[in-house]
Amino acid sequence: MKIIAFPERGQWANLLARPVQDSREIEEKVAPILADVKNKGDQAIRELAFKFDKVTLDSLAFPAEAMERAADLLDDTLKDAIQQAYRNIRTFHSKQLQAVGKIETMPGVTCWRKSVGIEKVGIYIPGGTAPLFSTVLMLGVPAQLAGCREVILCTPSDHPAILYAAKLVGVTKAFRIGGAQAIAAMAYGTETVPKVYKIFGPGNQYVTSAKMLVSKEGVAIDMPAGPSEVAVYADDTAVPSFVAADLLSQAEHGADSQVLLVSTSKKLLSAVNLALVGQMDRLPRKDLAARAIENSKAILVESETDVIDLLNEYAAEHLILSVANAEKISEKIINAGSIFLGNYTPESCGDYASGTNHTLPTNGHARAYSGVSVDSFVKKITVQSITVQGLRNLGPVVEAMAEAESLDAHRNAVSIRLKSLE
Amino acid sequence: MKIIAFPERGQWANLLARPVQDSREIEEKVAPILADVKNKGDQAIRELAFKFDKVTLDSLAFPAEAMERAADLLDDTLKDAIQQAYRNIRTFHSKQLQAVGKIETMPGVTCWRKSVGIEKVGIYIPGGTAPLFSTVLMLGVPAQLAGCREVILCTPSDHPAILYAAKLVGVTKAFRIGGAQAIAAMAYGTETVPKVYKIFGPGNQYVTSAKMLVSKEGVAIDMPAGPSEVAVYADDTAVPSFVAADLLSQAEHGADSQVLLVSTSKKLLSAVNLALVGQMDRLPRKDLAARAIENSKAILVESETDVIDLLNEYAAEHLILSVANAEKISEKIINAGSIFLGNYTPESCGDYASGTNHTLPTNGHARAYSGVSVDSFVKKITVQSITVQGLRNLGPVVEAMAEAESLDAHRNAVSIRLKSLE
Repeated sequence: MKIIAFPERGQWANLLARPVQDSREIEEKVAPILADVKNKGDQAIRELAFKFDKVTLDSLAFPAEAMERAADLLDDTLKDAIQQAYRNIRTFHSKQLQAVGKIETMPGVTCWRKSVGIEKVGIYIPGGTAPLFSTVLMLGVPAQLAGCREVILCTPSDHPAILYAAKLVGVTKAFRIGGAQAIAAMAYGTETVPKVYKIFGPGNQYVTSAKMLVSKEGVAIDMPAGPSEVAVYADDTAVPSFVAADLLSQAEHGADSQVLLVSTSKKLLSAVNLALVGQMDRLPRKDLAARAIENSKAILVESETDVIDLLNEYAAEHLILSVANAEKISEKIINAGSIFLGNYTPESCGDYASGTNHTLPTNGHARAYSGVSVDSFVKKITVQSITVQGLRNLGPVVEAMAEAESLDAHRNAVSIRLKSLE
Repeated sequence: MKIIAFPERGQWANLLARPVQDSREIEEKVAPILADVKNKGDQAIRELAFKFDKVTLDSLAFPAEAMERAADLLDDTLKDAIQQAYRNIRTFHSKQLQAVGKIETMPGVTCWRKSVGIEKVGIYIPGGTAPLFSTVLMLGVPAQLAGCREVILCTPSDHPAILYAAKLVGVTKAFRIGGAQAIAAMAYGTETVPKVYKIFGPGNQYVTSAKMLVSKEGVAIDMPAGPSEVAVYADDTAVPSFVAADLLSQAEHGADSQVLLVSTSKKLLSAVNLALVGQMDRLPRKDLAARAIENSKAILVESETDVIDLLNEYAAEHLILSVANAEKISEKIINAGSIFLGNYTPESCGDYASGTNHTLPTNGHARAYSGVSVDSFVKKITVQSITVQGLRNLGPVVEAMAEAESLDAHRNAVSIRLKSLE
């Protein structure tokens, strides 16, 4: 990693800038795919699967037997691991369910919020070399807890771990559809794929672009996506080989992964650089990782205050605090997706099984967005009930305000009731 | 209103469809405005204010004296009403703040979520005949409760009620800027207007289009906007004149307001129609209201089950249940922005002062979106801390899953730590 020593604050914005991606070219390729699926439904999906992936799809839905058989195809260690991850994710997310609490804001005026699971949601899981069954858990568990009635899964992968996880989280229908056409199928509905109200999940730039385009048409999406990121703040209590391993675990996602190391200790930065070289060589994906590490930055700063300001300006998806007073520092972090404290909390624990969600805001979106949680799968509907006495108390307030906003019919809706009580 | 008797379920979708708006033409007008403000900052804002509104802006910021003096310019009745609304909204929204709860998902693995106010948020309030000071309260109170550090207000209106409300909710800076250029100023920042991370508030189609465009560039927005809506379900226990008043209070928002009345009683529908005629004549905005009522629908259906299914399919922004068993029915509603129960809970109470928020999902978005709440102004950051024993418990689970996903560096981040403990 290139070490950048004591950059001035004026340089931070440039130093921390993410690569800007021009999405227009991709959009122009994706828009016709969406239109095709909208117009021709299942037929378009079959044609596109053949055109792009040379796959002939007989049935779009995974047969029930495939879901049932998945468990038998996995070895017990992996099956147990998936079950333990499922339990931990469930334990953490179940505390996010909120009870209804009625609030009397004035005598006779009672208001409350009820959480209702979004009726129909869709989950996309990409194919490729790495079958992301962990993401099935991360999106399926909160959907299950939220009480979503229909949970649709689209994935081009038939890896048994994906189907096993889908069964665990109660996916109601699973389809063997990949790419932008899968997003279109869930956004518009086809003869066999139900239309959903919100779409979740990672994907390549075509999938991401499809999600952005359908979101303009009123289908909700989890959040805007970008390359994965980690920022590590380490001091001399950090173990350089652990830090190096964490940086590499981010870097192996791809050459566009964003990796940032910050410290007030030059010694630590040098030691991590040394450890990186040793570990990188042993990785099967070392080419990818090497390129990401080449593009990454190790920043040496003066003080802890500088570190905190810099980290808040960057707003990392994952933030590892390998420092003596990690929890204390975490309280000063206002922009991050998820924070990992101390020497024995590697990011990969959160990626898989500690219980927190791994679908997190990238690209600086942590300034305004949260990671996925049960909140992402519910709507909160407000309800209010006013008694006759309540309206006597509240009515004049509403009449005065409606009149001042020149909304006479709003005022009248109160006045006509109050008059009837005279 | 046109009464539609016993439509078949197959017809519902057409019957409940909202008018589709083509946003491309507006986008083409708005995009250059955004680019102009991005490139030329304050100067562009001054030029655009002169070009579109013939306004010469000396200072973009409202002078501190204007904020201070606002209270003196309001009569006491209105000031008291605004204060009472402020207290009720605060009471209701303050219960949405969530305490941090640490959760041990496995022995030695502790995870939690902390809510942090979005550091910089922007509120837009349109000008025009009706000064929407109520919206300043509806957006400003949750921002204040969330602990947002910088709350920017842009509005072309200098109505003292807006400035008074802004002071109450702790707006940190207020600017006399209207239209798409106000959204651009807050999205990109200018010499005087700070850049914010999330933009809230209503506006005309130019403002709405500007919000959609900047959201594609990574600035979060409250929710997609559309014309305001009410659906009323009334039975023979409803008072026809009250129902008519509620329908008109929606209709006066504009000719594109969506108004829907559903009942199993033909008698009720006819009585409401009669009451509408009488009340409409007395409204100052009667032309607007008449056009909205003309486009609206009264639907007669067979059964309560039909009503509930139809209302859930429509997903109204506001839903008034003027029926005997209103609370019971409300429990079966899964798609709505806000629900009003019984004869003495007119929508206008929620619009102004009952305590619930009036920024709600329109255009069917209630299927996946919630109204504005404190949640809209915070991010929830997850934090995790794992002890040595915790990593011994959790590590093997993560190793097995990372290996199965072919992410070796992820596995290694755990293995290197476990090996160091041997």
